[in-house]
Amino acid sequence: MFRLWILPGSISVLMTFFLLTSDLFPRSAFAQANSIPADQLPQFTPDGSLREPSNWETWVMVGASTGLSYNAPAAAPAAGAAPGTFHNVYMQPWAYREFMKTGVFPERTMLVLSFFDASRKSAPAKAGFYEGDRVPDIDIHLKRKGIDQTGWAFFGFTDGAAVGGKLPSSASCYSCHATEAAHDNVFTQFYPFLRTRLASARH
Amino acid sequence: MFRLWILPGSISVLMTFFLLTSDLFPRSAFAQANSIPADQLPQFTPDGSLREPSNWETWVMVGASTGLSYNAPAAAPAAGAAPGTFHNVYMQPWAYREFMKTGVFPERTMLVLSFFDASRKSAPAKAGFYEGDRVPDIDIHLKRKGIDQTGWAFFGFTDGAAVGGKLPSSASCYSCHATEAAHDNVFTQFYPFLRTRLASARH
Repeated sequence: MFRLWILPGSISVLMTFFLLTSDLFPRSAFAQANSIPADQLPQFTPDGSLREPSNWETWVMVGASTGLSYNAPAAAPAAGAAPGTFHNVYMQPWAYREFMKTGVFPERTMLVLSFFDASRKSAPAKAGFYEGDRVPDIDIHLKRKGIDQTGWAFFGFTDGAAVGGKLPSSASCYSCHATEAAHDNVFTQFYPFLRTRLASARH
Repeated sequence: MFRLWILPGSISVLMTFFLLTSDLFPRSAFAQANSIPADQLPQFTPDGSLREPSNWETWVMVGASTGLSYNAPAAAPAAGAAPGTFHNVYMQPWAYREFMKTGVFPERTMLVLSFFDASRKSAPAKAGFYEGDRVPDIDIHLKRKGIDQTGWAFFGFTDGAAVGGKLPSSASCYSCHATEAAHDNVFTQFYPFLRTRLASARH
């Protein structure tokens, strides 16, 4: 009788491990925490365009800015005028965690640039501007070996398009990011938590 | 012999289910996805102060604004002057998902208000402002039944303190949020994705 119980015991342990490591049951929380959610990875169309990732507005917002322009304004801004369009930049949570650990943007990092009208704060505020209507365009900056000599590519999504074409390597954004960005083609100088991470690594 | 194999089979199935449902093994991905990470829930000190949640900067940033003030400015702003301090508001990812599903802020929702100096964009930009040094203060707005007659409380974290005291219910923020906020004591009118969610529910 004792021997009969040893046998079922060994088999059940083996079978338990088989089930836990097979695809028949959902993977453990440990494995889940170390994998990258599919919707936070770049997905391409057959012709090499990028699909808009879903729910990018829930990613880590690494920096907001207002009124960014690469051209000198035609006229001096009027006193009290709106500071210009808001820009928010979002990064995948897994890529942010990796960057905070290593100080390096991992392959497949995506930075989503989105735009919002600057709306005047009304009651109860007496001054200030908030994010009004979202401009339907977004741009995505993707790190991918070999995609361009800088190792990064820009994709433009116009008027709410679900797919964005790659901007040609001759576009000025490539050369400007390559020479002006503080760290690996990314304007980390404008992103508080990334900037702090890089500064702390130097000391 | 056949009967001997039936017995181990039943026992191993039973034991497998016991192990999968017990705390001896990590919970399945399914259970994990439906539970709330502990660091996204309010944690209190014995005297009822709130502990600063870790990594709130990775939560969903629901809205940025600049130069918000409840007082009329003493002097008209100068032309080209900085638009004022940036305010970013962050919300727990699970609470955001819940709100997008139901249009209701779940109990234990926290909104973290953080502040950044407005720094002038330098090269390559010709105009604009970005988020400079973070002001070490944060405020947290917490939804919790019974904590105040509005169902929400404010906690102030000064100078990087890890613990924030509850502001008294007589503080003006309570009455102002109660009367001026577009939805359940929250200024959803200033938060693009929450605002859109609420507008879509009306149609």
